[in-house]
Amino acid sequence: MSLLVAIRGWTPDDWIERFRRLAPEREIVDARRPFDAAAVTHAAVWKPEAGLLARLPGLRAIFNLGAGVDALLADPALPDVPVARIIDPDLTARMTEWVVMNVLMHHRQVLARAEDQRRRIWGSRPQPAARDVTVGIMGLGVLGGDAAQVLRRLGFGVAGWSRTPRSIDGITCFSGPVGLDSFLARTDILVVLLPATPETRGILRRDLFIRLRRDAHMGGPVLINGGRGGLQVEADILAALDDGTLAAASLDVFETEPLAETSPLWTHPRVVVTPHCAADSDPETLARVIVDAVRREEAGGGLAAETLVDRRAGY
Amino acid sequence: MSLLVAIRGWTPDDWIERFRRLAPEREIVDARRPFDAAAVTHAAVWKPEAGLLARLPGLRAIFNLGAGVDALLADPALPDVPVARIIDPDLTARMTEWVVMNVLMHHRQVLARAEDQRRRIWGSRPQPAARDVTVGIMGLGVLGGDAAQVLRRLGFGVAGWSRTPRSIDGITCFSGPVGLDSFLARTDILVVLLPATPETRGILRRDLFIRLRRDAHMGGPVLINGGRGGLQVEADILAALDDGTLAAASLDVFETEPLAETSPLWTHPRVVVTPHCAADSDPETLARVIVDAVRREEAGGGLAAETLVDRRAGY
Repeated sequence: MSLLVAIRGWTPDDWIERFRRLAPEREIVDARRPFDAAAVTHAAVWKPEAGLLARLPGLRAIFNLGAGVDALLADPALPDVPVARIIDPDLTARMTEWVVMNVLMHHRQVLARAEDQRRRIWGSRPQPAARDVTVGIMGLGVLGGDAAQVLRRLGFGVAGWSRTPRSIDGITCFSGPVGLDSFLARTDILVVLLPATPETRGILRRDLFIRLRRDAHMGGPVLINGGRGGLQVEADILAALDDGTLAAASLDVFETEPLAETSPLWTHPRVVVTPHCAADSDPETLARVIVDAVRREEAGGGLAAETLVDRRAGY
Repeated sequence: MSLLVAIRGWTPDDWIERFRRLAPEREIVDARRPFDAAAVTHAAVWKPEAGLLARLPGLRAIFNLGAGVDALLADPALPDVPVARIIDPDLTARMTEWVVMNVLMHHRQVLARAEDQRRRIWGSRPQPAARDVTVGIMGLGVLGGDAAQVLRRLGFGVAGWSRTPRSIDGITCFSGPVGLDSFLARTDILVVLLPATPETRGILRRDLFIRLRRDAHMGGPVLINGGRGGLQVEADILAALDDGTLAAASLDVFETEPLAETSPLWTHPRVVVTPHCAADSDPETLARVIVDAVRREEAGGGLAAETLVDRRAGY
């Protein structure tokens, strides 16, 4: 009946304190210290050590402390119990903020305008209307669907692409390998919110960028990746920016994080780098979501269907 | 039966060409050249010479080529015919883009993040949720109302203030001098879309800034002016930024335009300057809106009520 907290990459102390405060009825155990493996029924994890979860005979459910489960699913000994991702309105709202802001910043030429400001230039720049621009969103889960709605409200054309067919009001939806060409051919600003799976690894590479729409009155295609770093080939992004295949990019995730100090992305004049903070949620809210889910599972209510990870699909 | 085009500050040639193309049935006359004053029934103007319109005995309606009518109404000899402002969905959409983008940029700390990027810092910054932030919008006309809805959809608390009482779904509305204190006391990010009138001139000054909300977990109040330059006292904005009364500002309009090269606003690290381009509309669309309105007026349909300027109120 205990909740194991196994976190690597972040400091677990605050999380353990939070869970103890929010679930005083339960023993909260720290994976860094010796603990009674047989008593653990639930685990709250972020990139746990491979093999650790396999040593818990009474484990009933695993809660992943972020949206991406790729690191967790990479554990070859991951036990066969339900894995839940966080679905939290706060996380969704923050990702939508980040996506909408970055779309608007490229659409309204903020990088060029900032340079004008630095040079004290009061000048005009041709500015297409949102209705003449199509934002294409790869990944139409909870996050992609929410951002799509706000972008639509702002007047952008919105197209979407997902692995399996989806239907969203007002969004032109494409799916699977067969739909990718048509999707890219109409996309001016590409927003990526895909999970990292064997199928999507390295998908953001040159042969995808060259298929994006090249419209005369736009500056060129823009890439916005708020999904996972493993989706992108950074050498290809840099080459595409330099030969004009891409006009600009906003990247919140990277092949290796933290992004190496030597990466040319940091100082590229047409790249916005953020340190994997697009949807940094309030930890207090996330802990509360997990404590509620553990209580519900224990009371026989199972896990909410939309939070369940499809282990075969990888997300 | 002719349409007079009287434009100062911009080059009128493109406008004249556009009107000739869109309304071939009508004589389009250029205020810079001799013309038959008695034949002019309609005028499309931007900051026309004072007294010019008074010399047109057959004038039936004046169309202002921008949203702000303050320069036009300052003509003491302005004849007593209806004055219409442009209400164009394209202009509204562009202003909403600019407002939403600037609110998000300050909310998500883009200026500080850009500095982190320049210094190759992979760091975390505390980030409040939108629901803990209130955007206060001064001016609840077509533009303010539209921006309010999108900000609400993004999860921000939204308050509004207007001269006369308004009611907008989901927005806490205040009005008149008596409502101003309560409005400011709950506002973290102040968005200004007021018209310039004798009442509003210089309203954005120190004694208003000090009444904004100062919440411990926010960096301090932010000013976003997309309205008119005459609303603001730039010396007060700079002093407020420097003593911490304001945390940051985005300004699209200025006391004098173009903004003087010597203005410290250009290079202030917490100020975003744009050259009065927040709602730069497509001139082709605007010209079409005016040609349609002229035809409608001439056919006895009058001017659309929501476009009519209230000359006593000044907007």
